[in-house]
Amino acid sequence: MAQPQTEQAPVLFETSPDRYRHWRLEVQGDTARLVWDVQEGQPLRPGYALKLNSYDLGVDIELADAVRRLRFEHPEVRAVSIVSGKERVFSAGANIHMLAASSHSFKVNFCKFTNETRLAIEEASAASGQRYLAACNGIAAGGGYELALACDEIILVDDGSSAVSLPEVPLLGVLPGTGGLTRLSDKRRVRRDHADIFCTTAEGVKGQRAVDWRLVDAVSPRSRFDETVRERVAKLAAAVPRKEGPGVRLPALDVKVGRDELVYTHLHVTIDRATRTAGLVLKGPSGPPPTDAAALRREGSATWMLRLFLELEDAICRLRFNEEEIGVWLIRTEGEPDLVAAHDEALSRLAPTDWFAREVLLLAGRTLRRLDVTARTLFALVEPGSCFAGSLLEAALACDRTYALDDPDRPVALRLSPLNFGALPMGHGMTRLQARFPQRPEALEAFRKRTEAGEPPRFDARAAVEAGIVTIAADEIDYEDEVRVAVEERSSLSPDALTGMEASLRFPGAESMETKIFGRLSAWQNWIFQRPNAVGEHGALKCYGRPERPAFDWRRT
Amino acid sequence: MAQPQTEQAPVLFETSPDRYRHWRLEVQGDTARLVWDVQEGQPLRPGYALKLNSYDLGVDIELADAVRRLRFEHPEVRAVSIVSGKERVFSAGANIHMLAASSHSFKVNFCKFTNETRLAIEEASAASGQRYLAACNGIAAGGGYELALACDEIILVDDGSSAVSLPEVPLLGVLPGTGGLTRLSDKRRVRRDHADIFCTTAEGVKGQRAVDWRLVDAVSPRSRFDETVRERVAKLAAAVPRKEGPGVRLPALDVKVGRDELVYTHLHVTIDRATRTAGLVLKGPSGPPPTDAAALRREGSATWMLRLFLELEDAICRLRFNEEEIGVWLIRTEGEPDLVAAHDEALSRLAPTDWFAREVLLLAGRTLRRLDVTARTLFALVEPGSCFAGSLLEAALACDRTYALDDPDRPVALRLSPLNFGALPMGHGMTRLQARFPQRPEALEAFRKRTEAGEPPRFDARAAVEAGIVTIAADEIDYEDEVRVAVEERSSLSPDALTGMEASLRFPGAESMETKIFGRLSAWQNWIFQRPNAVGEHGALKCYGRPERPAFDWRRT
Repeated sequence: MAQPQTEQAPVLFETSPDRYRHWRLEVQGDTARLVWDVQEGQPLRPGYALKLNSYDLGVDIELADAVRRLRFEHPEVRAVSIVSGKERVFSAGANIHMLAASSHSFKVNFCKFTNETRLAIEEASAASGQRYLAACNGIAAGGGYELALACDEIILVDDGSSAVSLPEVPLLGVLPGTGGLTRLSDKRRVRRDHADIFCTTAEGVKGQRAVDWRLVDAVSPRSRFDETVRERVAKLAAAVPRKEGPGVRLPALDVKVGRDELVYTHLHVTIDRATRTAGLVLKGPSGPPPTDAAALRREGSATWMLRLFLELEDAICRLRFNEEEIGVWLIRTEGEPDLVAAHDEALSRLAPTDWFAREVLLLAGRTLRRLDVTARTLFALVEPGSCFAGSLLEAALACDRTYALDDPDRPVALRLSPLNFGALPMGHGMTRLQARFPQRPEALEAFRKRTEAGEPPRFDARAAVEAGIVTIAADEIDYEDEVRVAVEERSSLSPDALTGMEASLRFPGAESMETKIFGRLSAWQNWIFQRPNAVGEHGALKCYGRPERPAFDWRRT
Repeated sequence: MAQPQTEQAPVLFETSPDRYRHWRLEVQGDTARLVWDVQEGQPLRPGYALKLNSYDLGVDIELADAVRRLRFEHPEVRAVSIVSGKERVFSAGANIHMLAASSHSFKVNFCKFTNETRLAIEEASAASGQRYLAACNGIAAGGGYELALACDEIILVDDGSSAVSLPEVPLLGVLPGTGGLTRLSDKRRVRRDHADIFCTTAEGVKGQRAVDWRLVDAVSPRSRFDETVRERVAKLAAAVPRKEGPGVRLPALDVKVGRDELVYTHLHVTIDRATRTAGLVLKGPSGPPPTDAAALRREGSATWMLRLFLELEDAICRLRFNEEEIGVWLIRTEGEPDLVAAHDEALSRLAPTDWFAREVLLLAGRTLRRLDVTARTLFALVEPGSCFAGSLLEAALACDRTYALDDPDRPVALRLSPLNFGALPMGHGMTRLQARFPQRPEALEAFRKRTEAGEPPRFDARAAVEAGIVTIAADEIDYEDEVRVAVEERSSLSPDALTGMEASLRFPGAESMETKIFGRLSAWQNWIFQRPNAVGEHGALKCYGRPERPAFDWRRT
């Protein structure tokens, strides 16, 4: 990591409110305000100015941090308003000049990250009892409106000019990049012909029509705008049950960045540039779990699962952005499977009544979903001393393949825990076991019953292959070669074809708004981002802000 | 059409068994054999040889015709085997040299058409009682295996070498282009890690492992192969109810191709190259419908709805392939709305007991679904003399917007019929009304009840806007300008951005295997087809068959 392949400085994802440059987090009783006042002169990378609350990845990293901290550090908050710190402008959206100057892979990963932040907002509302309201005090364009779409309510000032808009298609020749189209149709249920007009009208829609078309929930004259927002935030808060504070401060990650490695407390990442692979070793807990909510609260920031998944989340983001050529991630674990399962069971038992236990599981779930949509090949390696149990087995189940070393003298042990049966769902709502065994629901049901009865299925390497949990087991003589050849072969294939293939095979069965955004919408966006009509010398994205009009190849595909 | 924009001859879609070059359709009692013996020297366009039963669009046009004719002309057939006419090879898949030499838009449209043919096979099985079996007497690679995946059963010869395979990712750096990945995961429920290995192993999987991994249903030694196929086809046939013959011969289309127009019996297509628009006028029936199944059978090939949708299907395919730059299609109707509804009601009433009525509706449904996934802007224009009722209203509901002329002296009349409530579903299983009004199920239910009671909702222009059936109504003074400006604006936007936007907005809510193929998988494929790693000078697709190895940009996105 000390020597990333890009010439640009690596992107860092850790931040905290005292270091925010673009946001202010203001907590007042059971509501909070997230005020964005993007600093023009402080882009993540030099070369563009963040005018009119337009944003880049740096702005979104702070937002993601704020949303996460509100859940852990301010459980008393029941409603959050997203408020502009600018006069008469909510946001101009993702910064165009940043996009135009970015590589294809950066653009795609930027959209993925911002989508994940929006999904975290929606999850905070649905699962953490923190409702969000977007207070659009002026134009909310493109990504600015898409952020509003992630909120439960959108209030737009009614001043004769302020509009919401998705001008990407008419102005830039690309799609809204942060799930906007899918949220219009699937979340807000905007009629498709209205959505069609809206998305092709650069100036957007304002006033009563915006309400009639379900684009916003209410409009309010400027004179009453702040009052309206306060009232509606109070109403949102009142509909949500209170949670017992105080919050739990999120730990600083304290990562040691070495030459080609990242050393966290419970996670060790190494990079092998020759084979273009990364090794991730997830470490199990070193002692028994807290026995009750009070003990869990005393562990607080030091809670094993909290810390591990924060670290894994950080590593996933760093690897995605800073190590684009590292195409295969090898996921290992180290520790005691029964200890992992004991922690899983404790959190699973406490979660129904303890918000902190619940938040830890939600974080683990979100992080595993980041793995699911990561455009890298994921192989899990089950080796002696590993602890692929419950929550950590989910990391293996998120992988494209799993290899196990079958050595009778040093047997591996995989096992299930209650967390394999619903607490850590994939984006389309299925568990990873359901997605893996669509043709064997009765086997899964048997697994679930045994786990509930306190006799969870356990597997050595052979049994795991028999049960379908592991792809291939090999003995001591063959294992190393088997893995080496598989990794070499994988590393030699077209990165693009692998991305499309993995995105298709990882999500059998159902779809949800979330997977439609990542699978359907993002794939179209990726295609468009690659087309000369957008990024060619005379493409719309390149021409934006220049006198020249874009020159299109008119052939429809 | 006489002067297509491409220099190549236009693609024609009409054919018949006596003109097939690559297939033989052999009907024997209640089973049929579709024998493909692709003629190397007869590609659709010069420049490549169709070796080893590899195929191009010309081959698939014949297959689509055969599948359709079996349904109409041979209702007595209950099971069809797809059999190779070559020794020891089922099919090498889509012809690589054809793909490498094709434009991006041709490739994408080729994949769309072949997917539609596969879906028609699956619909024939599910809705027409004609089961399909793929008799893989040798290698079934890539698109060859994907054709097998569209069948109910796949039998593979077990000779120590014949395998099924999807070698696109490892050999060509692209995805299987005809729905293979989605069918593996969602239809055959192949475990995702098995699918991962299968799709990255160029030589494929053979013998018992192919059965164990659910890639095929059975293997059979060569000595017993033909017998096994016969037995299993007979078994498939026996499980399907018999239908009353005789069949109905599909009419010849008898299209007059003029300068910039296509004149069919019930459809008139005009091209305006200056505005890059096509006008499609669908004509309603000229008389009352047949009153019973016998009368309908006497109409046979001349049945209004049969003929209209065959013509529309032909026009959609021609416009997609031969008129790539014509980006906006304006759909009008001419006729008597109540007559359309009378025909709808007759077919709707007869369909539960009459296979021919059912086939006509299935054809109409498939054709409307072709509209849904057509990468062109669709506007419906409701003007005096139009007949947007029932089945023809579905064409408007498939459009991105609908404009109506509101002239009290010449009022338009739109109305519902029983066919708006399930017989003509979209690819994700919803009706177009459901997809349009996800937030108003109770209004839809009221519409349905009134239609069932013989009092279907009727709308003039204003009422249609009120009800949300029409997007915009304008009076005589404004209408023409309103439409002209909308079309001009639309025609000026990036064709790619429009394609991605329309594909997203047209399918709110649920997904199915079909829409996952068109929305998720195809979008990834389109992206990959555009990437230098596939189509660049050193891309995998370009290097195929050359000594040179592809040179990849290793950055993952």
